[in-house]
Amino acid sequence: MAQPTEETVSVRALGERGTLARILPLLPVARSTLVPPGDDAAVSTLEGGSVVTTCDMMIEGPDFRFDWSTPHDVGWKAMASNLADVAAMGATPTGVIVAVACPAETSIEVLEGIARGIADGLQAMAPGCGVLGGDLSTASELCLSVTVLGELAGHPPVLRSGAQPGDVVAVAGELGVSERGLRVLAEHTEQAGEVLSEQSRDVLRDRHPEVAHHLAPTAPIALGVVAAQAGASAMMDISDGLVLDATRMAEASGVSINLDGALKDDEEALMGGEDHGLLACFPEGSALPEGFRAVGVVGAPGEHVVTVGGEALAVSRGGWDPYRDSSSVNTAVSP
Amino acid sequence: MAQPTEETVSVRALGERGTLARILPLLPVARSTLVPPGDDAAVSTLEGGSVVTTCDMMIEGPDFRFDWSTPHDVGWKAMASNLADVAAMGATPTGVIVAVACPAETSIEVLEGIARGIADGLQAMAPGCGVLGGDLSTASELCLSVTVLGELAGHPPVLRSGAQPGDVVAVAGELGVSERGLRVLAEHTEQAGEVLSEQSRDVLRDRHPEVAHHLAPTAPIALGVVAAQAGASAMMDISDGLVLDATRMAEASGVSINLDGALKDDEEALMGGEDHGLLACFPEGSALPEGFRAVGVVGAPGEHVVTVGGEALAVSRGGWDPYRDSSSVNTAVSP
Repeated sequence: MAQPTEETVSVRALGERGTLARILPLLPVARSTLVPPGDDAAVSTLEGGSVVTTCDMMIEGPDFRFDWSTPHDVGWKAMASNLADVAAMGATPTGVIVAVACPAETSIEVLEGIARGIADGLQAMAPGCGVLGGDLSTASELCLSVTVLGELAGHPPVLRSGAQPGDVVAVAGELGVSERGLRVLAEHTEQAGEVLSEQSRDVLRDRHPEVAHHLAPTAPIALGVVAAQAGASAMMDISDGLVLDATRMAEASGVSINLDGALKDDEEALMGGEDHGLLACFPEGSALPEGFRAVGVVGAPGEHVVTVGGEALAVSRGGWDPYRDSSSVNTAVSP
Repeated sequence: MAQPTEETVSVRALGERGTLARILPLLPVARSTLVPPGDDAAVSTLEGGSVVTTCDMMIEGPDFRFDWSTPHDVGWKAMASNLADVAAMGATPTGVIVAVACPAETSIEVLEGIARGIADGLQAMAPGCGVLGGDLSTASELCLSVTVLGELAGHPPVLRSGAQPGDVVAVAGELGVSERGLRVLAEHTEQAGEVLSEQSRDVLRDRHPEVAHHLAPTAPIALGVVAAQAGASAMMDISDGLVLDATRMAEASGVSINLDGALKDDEEALMGGEDHGLLACFPEGSALPEGFRAVGVVGAPGEHVVTVGGEALAVSRGGWDPYRDSSSVNTAVSP
C-alpha cells in the first residue's frame, strides 16, 4: 500500500513541490481563512476571544496498519478523533493543521488518499472547517500529526470536571461499534496469517458496517455545540471506552456515575474505544438535546467511581499506552 | 544519545503517564491559558479576532542528528524556526502545540532535554508564550511536530507580497552565521569519520559561536510586531538564505530586489539558511526600527528578480527538498 506501483509515482520522484501540487488541490479551504497557506503562516478568523486547541498523532504501526486501513481511512479517522476533542469542549472546529512525514518511496497515491480522507471527513463531520496549513517531511513510517483549532461563540468551554450529583449522563454517537469492527478485523487477520489481503478487507468492510465504522468512524461533531447550548454541565469524547472515560469524568468532577443496568452485558459498549462519540452530563430534569440518549445518572462520590446498574465493575483495562503497549516499536496495533 | 544508559530509564519503562509526569513540569504554561492541557482540548485567550498558525516538523535524520544537536538544541531550534514564521506575519506567538514520537527505548533524558530546550527557547525568544498541549507516540526515529499560534493585536498581517518599488529592504538577526557553523561541524565530522564525538562537538561549540548558533539559533521574534507597527510593507523569515527568500518575496510582490553590493563576496550571508532572522521592507524614507539594518532596495520588476550590487547572481540552490534531497531516508542532514 505504501509502495508505488508501476502506474504510480513516489513522493521522492515528485519532490516536495510536485507532491504539494498534487495534494493541495484536494484539501478544503477553511471558511475562516483570511490568509491561506503559502506565506510564512496562515491567518484565519476566530470568534469569541479564545481558541480551543487539540493535537493527536497517528503513526503507521502503533495507530494504524495499511492492510486494514486505506489511506482515505487514515485521513478520515485523524479528523474524527481530533474534531471530537474540540467538539467535546462545546466548540466549533474552524481549521486543522496537518503535518505528514513518510518514506520518500511512498506512492503519491497514499498521500492523495489521506488528503481525500481529510477532505471527506471534514465535509461530513465539520463542514466549513478546512486545512490552515501543514508540513511535509520524511520518516521511516508514515506519521500524521493533526492539530485542530476551534471557537467558542458566546459560551464558556464545557469541561469534564463539571458533573453534579443528580445530572443525567448521556451519550451521542455509537457505543462499542468500533470495538466490534476491530474484533472482526482481528479474527479474520488471525485466520489469514498475519496480514489481511486488500480483497478480504474490502469484503469484510462491505459485509460488516462495524468494520467500516472502526476504520473511518463518523463522530457527532456538531452535537458538541448543541450540548453546550443545552446547558451540558460536563462533556468529553469517548475514545477509550464508556467505563474508562466515565471514570475519568467522575474523578475530575468528584462524583460517581451509575450507568444503566441494561448495558451490563454489553461488554463492547462498556469497554470498547475509538467510537469518538460524546459523553455529556445535563442538569436533572432538562430535556436532552436531539442526538443524545440517557445512559446513567451522576451520584455523590461513593465507594465506586463508576457502577453499572448499581454494581461495581472490575475494570481491567487502563487505556492504550503508546510506550508500554507496543510490544516492539511500530508492530503493535492500538486495541 | 537516544539510548538510555545504566543511570537513565526508557520511556517504555516509564509508560506514557510516567513520561508525561517527567516532562510536563518542565514546560512553561502560556500566559494566554484559560483551560490548561488535561481536558479534551486546551483553551487560551486570543486577541484581535484572528489567529496566526504555522507548523513545522523536525525529524531525526533529515532535520537533525544527535551527534551534533543535544536534545536541548532540538527543542530550542524547533521553537526558533516556528516562532519566526509567526513573527514574520507581524504577530505575537501565544502558544505552541508539540507532538513527539520516538522509539520506546528512548531515554527519558532525551525528552526532558527537548522539553527544557522548548522552555528555554520560549523564555528567551517569546516570553509569555507557553505549551498549550501536544501528544506522545512511538516511531522508529524521533519526530517532533510543532504548531504555533499567534495573535495580531490591532494591525493586519504583514505578507511577503506587499513590497513596493522604492522600499528599503532590511534584515533583523544573523545572516550566514548558521551556515558557517554548519560548515565547521561538517568539516570536523568528515575528519572524524562519519560521526562527531560528544566531546568534539562540545569543544567546537565552545570555540565557535557560529556552531552554537547553528544548533540553537536565537531568532529576533519580538521584532516581528515592531516591524509591523513601524509600517513594514512586506516581511518573511529567512530560513533558506537571503537570496532565495528575497527571490520569493520579490516574486510574490511582483518587484525586483537589489541587495547591497557589500554582500557580494559574503556567500554565507547570501546563501546560508537556518538563521531564522527577519527580512522586511519599509516604505522609502521611513526610519528603520531598532534591530533592523538596510541590506537593499526594492525596484520595479526587471530582467532579474534579485541582484547584488546591481549584478545578477547565478543561484544554484533551490532550497531543501525533504523528498529529493534525502539520499536515503533519514541519513542525510538538511544543508
